[in-house]
Parts: sequence; structure tokens; C-alpha cells
Amino acid sequence: MFSSGKVVKLYYDVASPYSWLAFEVLFRYRNVWNIDLKLKPAYLGGVINGSGNRPPGLIPNKLLYMASDLKLLSEYFEVPMFKPATLSDKDSLIPMRFVTAVAEKDKKGDMLVERVSRELWKRMWNTHQDITLPASLTEAGLKAGLSTNEVEEILTLTKSQPIKDKLKSVTLEALEYKCFGLPFIVCHVNGKAEVFFGSDRFELMAYFIGEKWMGPHPTKPTM
Amino acid sequence: MFSSGKVVKLYYDVASPYSWLAFEVLFRYRNVWNIDLKLKPAYLGGVINGSGNRPPGLIPNKLLYMASDLKLLSEYFEVPMFKPATLSDKDSLIPMRFVTAVAEKDKKGDMLVERVSRELWKRMWNTHQDITLPASLTEAGLKAGLSTNEVEEILTLTKSQPIKDKLKSVTLEALEYKCFGLPFIVCHVNGKAEVFFGSDRFELMAYFIGEKWMGPHPTKPTM
Repeated sequence: MFSSGKVVKLYYDVASPYSWLAFEVLFRYRNVWNIDLKLKPAYLGGVINGSGNRPPGLIPNKLLYMASDLKLLSEYFEVPMFKPATLSDKDSLIPMRFVTAVAEKDKKGDMLVERVSRELWKRMWNTHQDITLPASLTEAGLKAGLSTNEVEEILTLTKSQPIKDKLKSVTLEALEYKCFGLPFIVCHVNGKAEVFFGSDRFELMAYFIGEKWMGPHPTKPTM
Repeated sequence: MFSSGKVVKLYYDVASPYSWLAFEVLFRYRNVWNIDLKLKPAYLGGVINGSGNRPPGLIPNKLLYMASDLKLLSEYFEVPMFKPATLSDKDSLIPMRFVTAVAEKDKKGDMLVERVSRELWKRMWNTHQDITLPASLTEAGLKAGLSTNEVEEILTLTKSQPIKDKLKSVTLEALEYKCFGLPFIVCHVNGKAEVFFGSDRFELMAYFIGEKWMGPHPTKPTM
């Protein structure tokens, strides 16, 4: 396909359900808008600490809102996420190193990163499993289409210094764009860059890149 | 007009530019969606303290984002707001008591509250004037169509206990809905209530109330 020259970088962490929403929407629109979508697995904890922000879960009213907000968003966007009764206190450093290792292995395209990320979101925001355990990462990798050997290799890579450094450098890259939370989307169009935080700026993003927002299902016929 | 039974309550503070956006959008859609729009002038400081939240301005990266976000939103929504070089540290308690006094005087409709609120937003988020000064409130009142005598009366009311209590009670009402920031929108449809925070949930709100989101200009022909 002829490139439109519109580059969209998605900084995300599977610990963030709103990142999942942004991820699915951008994949649905990738061909519709003819954007060059670049996946940037990052570490939410590093973004929060690096920007001096606080996680939203610390405010009880925000947590309550998150439950009803995710429920309605999930229905409208058809992304099967919902808030567990209590939020996991597990850190996403290990799973995001795992995703980073998949991305390093999958240099040619990002089909594997796409599938592995989605499996991890499902485990965290749908079936509510602990994704910090190697067995859980293994199962996610297998479901995403990796072989047992590939999963083994990626689990080993996950503990390696280059992968740790890679995740750190992508997280720092996000902070250089003045990121303070995830998802964080950087759009490059006609030599201009614009950043969008969260999963609620798609319509505005479409306006910025000169495309049309057609709701969460661009290829479904509307009523 | 036959009532649709759809009640939409907008809790807002003129210190919040995103409240201005929500306010203009809801007025544009009021007749299109046939909603019973109820303006609820509240006090942002009370909401922040009451929910244990922190103002967004404390995080430098959020402040930077706010400037570019408001600029693009302003253009797309055609609401002439932009962030001043440095945010005002003036508290909005006095101006919101002033708006509350206007609302109490204007029991029959909300034309005056609408106009006065808009004038205050313009001063705070367009011309960047100090809206805590009586002279500034007076000018806003006059521009909104109040007579000198009416402004005098409202300025006196602003200092009265019933008005102070009224603003407090509306703010507490928002907190009872588990509010943690403004704008905060409560929709009542078919015996169900749903809350929406911020000015980026209109499409989702339309879905909830069974109406159609047509972008920021529902009555303008689209291309």
C-alpha cells in the first residue's frame, strides 16, 4: 500500500485497560486511515514515576468511576475488558519485558507482538489472571501462536540486559515526549508531531491527521 | 417540546476549561437530543479536596499536554479557550458563588446563568483576566445582559449565607455521585443513572442515552 506518510506511535502497557482500547481502535483504523502504526511497548510504572504522576487507583472515586466507565466502553467498543473486584498490585515490568522480547524477535512485522499483547490484556482485564508468572506468560505466548521453543527463548531473552535496556529506552522515549500516563499516542504528519493521552481522543486525532472518525467500528456498516 | 425524560446534569466550574467545552457541547445538543439539561454550578476546589484528588496542574508534563490539548480542542470544537503562560492561582470560590447567586435569581430558565458562565469562562480562558475581583464579576454580569442594579444585588447575594450554602450543597451532591473532578455529567435515562467525567465522553454518552453523536457541531452540515 502506498504510504500516506502518517506515522502513529502507540506507547502502551498491558497493565492499562485504556491502552487495550487504543490498541484495538488503532488496529481497526490502520488500513482505513493508511497510517504507519508503530507499537511501542513501554512500562507504565516508569512513566508514572518519571513524570511525578500518581496512579489513578489511589483515588477511591476514580476507581469506582473506572468500573462503570470500562463497562460502558467495553460494550460500545466491543473490547471485552472489565475491572476486577480489586485491582492487581502486581507490577507489569516482567510482562512488558516479555512483550519487548517478542518485539525484538519479531522485527519484520508486528503480528506476534499484536497477538501476544492482546493475550496478556485478556488475561489481565478479562479473565483476571496473574501475568507476572512465567507459566502465565508461556500460556499467553502459546495462545498467540508461538511454539514452545520460541516461548522458552523469549522467556530467556526477557531476563537479558538488552531487553531490560530496550524497555527502559522506549519508556524514556515516551517521557521525552512529555508523557505522564499510558496509552500515549504520538502522531507525525507533514513534519508536525502531536501527542494524545488516553483512549478518548481518536476523533480529535482524526481531525489532526486529516482523516474521518467513524466511531469504534470503521468497517461495520452504520445504521 | 415533549420531554424525552432524559435528564442531563452538568456539574461545572468556570476554573475548568474542559467544563466550558462540555457546557457548549451540551447546549448545542440540548434540542437535538431533546434532553432536559440542568446546570449545576459547583466548586472545583471542594470536589478535589472532598475526593482526595490532586489538581492536574501539579504534574509538569500534564500542564504541557494541557496547552496543546486545549489548542487543538479549541480549534475542533470552536470554543475559544487557551492556556495562559502560567495558570492563575486564584481560587474560583467567589466566581462560583456569583454564578450560584445568578442561578438562584434566574429560577425560571437558565439563560442568565448560561450567559454569565460563558462570560466568566471567556475572561478566565480567553482574555485571562482575574475573575475573583468584584469589578471583573460586574463587567461579566453587564456583558451577560444584567442591569447595574441586578449586578449589585447579585454581588450582595454572593456574600450571603444561603448562597454559600447552596454552592456547598451542589458540590456535595456531585461528591455523592462519586465525583473527583469537573466537568462531571450525570445522565438519568429510563430509571438508570450513569456518570461521565470530562469533556471526552460525549460519543459514549450519546450511546448510553440512545442518541447519535454527530461531532462537535450537530447542526452544521457535514462535508
